[in-house]
Amino acid sequence: MPRYKLTVEYDGGPFVGWQRQENGPSVQAALEAAARKLDPSAGEIYGAGRTDSGVHALGQVAHLDLVKDLPADTVRDALNHHLKPEPIAVLEAEAAAAAFHARFSATRRGYIYRIIARRAPLTLDKGKAWRVPKALDADAMHAAAQHLVGTHDFTTFRDAQCQADSPVKSLDFIDISARGRGELEVAVEAISFLHRQVRSIVGSLVEVGLGKWSPADFKAALEAADRRRCGPVAPPDGLYLHFVRYGRD
Amino acid sequence: MPRYKLTVEYDGGPFVGWQRQENGPSVQAALEAAARKLDPSAGEIYGAGRTDSGVHALGQVAHLDLVKDLPADTVRDALNHHLKPEPIAVLEAEAAAAAFHARFSATRRGYIYRIIARRAPLTLDKGKAWRVPKALDADAMHAAAQHLVGTHDFTTFRDAQCQADSPVKSLDFIDISARGRGELEVAVEAISFLHRQVRSIVGSLVEVGLGKWSPADFKAALEAADRRRCGPVAPPDGLYLHFVRYGRD
Repeated sequence: MPRYKLTVEYDGGPFVGWQRQENGPSVQAALEAAARKLDPSAGEIYGAGRTDSGVHALGQVAHLDLVKDLPADTVRDALNHHLKPEPIAVLEAEAAAAAFHARFSATRRGYIYRIIARRAPLTLDKGKAWRVPKALDADAMHAAAQHLVGTHDFTTFRDAQCQADSPVKSLDFIDISARGRGELEVAVEAISFLHRQVRSIVGSLVEVGLGKWSPADFKAALEAADRRRCGPVAPPDGLYLHFVRYGRD
Repeated sequence: MPRYKLTVEYDGGPFVGWQRQENGPSVQAALEAAARKLDPSAGEIYGAGRTDSGVHALGQVAHLDLVKDLPADTVRDALNHHLKPEPIAVLEAEAAAAAFHARFSATRRGYIYRIIARRAPLTLDKGKAWRVPKALDADAMHAAAQHLVGTHDFTTFRDAQCQADSPVKSLDFIDISARGRGELEVAVEAISFLHRQVRSIVGSLVEVGLGKWSPADFKAALEAADRRRCGPVAPPDGLYLHFVRYGRD
């Protein structure tokens, strides 16, 4: 059975998340339904990141096994045809080795989180960013965030329902940059993340940006390894799975 | 009567355009209805640019006269409250001189046009950019566009229904830049524009980007001053009224 690696973009707004669930439409189920129209024997589709309800993707990666041996571009175009009118697009399809697994072969995941600091409601970016009604100090947020780089117990910044065996994770990179017109972008990279880790971090960094917490308070919250020390969790609207990398690339 | 200058952002998708019309909801009518909730004696609202159906604004400017003398920030917040749930937001309200007119006092208008060149349908940017399914040569487009800078007869690039007295306009600036992931942004500035001028220019520049026209073909189309020489007019989805400037600022 030929295996295909898919790079997938979606607007997470209408979905219960990446993963198939009983309580509503998922990105995974929509992709699997499209794949079965292409090849009734198509198997389950596995994604690199199980994005939550309302979380978007610019570069989710998934893999799919077909019985039919089709050119990769045909797979991409046919899936996109059958996905209409869902806000899900296969940006790229590539032939993949049988050993390739979208989730377990991944060596780095990157997320971005968009914040727009302004009084006025969002229009064009509604559902696509988190509006914070006051000015934010991006430099203080960036300084606080650097305490996260390296290997830490991230208990403070993971959901109480997180099912990972350990709260210890390595975070490779985090950057907060001002983009003009009150927009901030948080970029964060790691091999893998805990449940709601990015949204927990961003919500706490906004406390720093508002001046409610100092960067030292943020560091103390991390070191406490206590979920009760987390700030308000940021909404899903601003979160995007940006890319997934494999091997040493 | 105190006059207020409003800077307005909107998603043009649900509207027949800026201007009040019989055949559907307009941005102007929505703003006027919100203003009358704030002050029943509020007058007509005048905008700097009469954006077409589906065209967006990041920084439309309008003016409004109230009978009530209110702090400008109160006007902004109250208009935003009464505008809900329309995708229109007043970013800023400022007290303006009685002689200030949003349309006639403007000294420069800037538009941007977003193009995304890719095979896959749009998801997050659906209705917010023009998808062109083939790669575009941004450098050739930029080179061709430079022929527009200066004062020209823009008959080729204005709608047949354009009601301006003359097709002669000065274009101050046009730039086409690649933004990664297949996205191109066209930025264009002038004192004022003809009807559908930007969309006509962008549609013709895409012919250059696709290699169907050379930059010299584009120059010849401009110089012909013949509407039949215009390329396919670009859809409204990618067009944004970016800013309006006044005086020498």
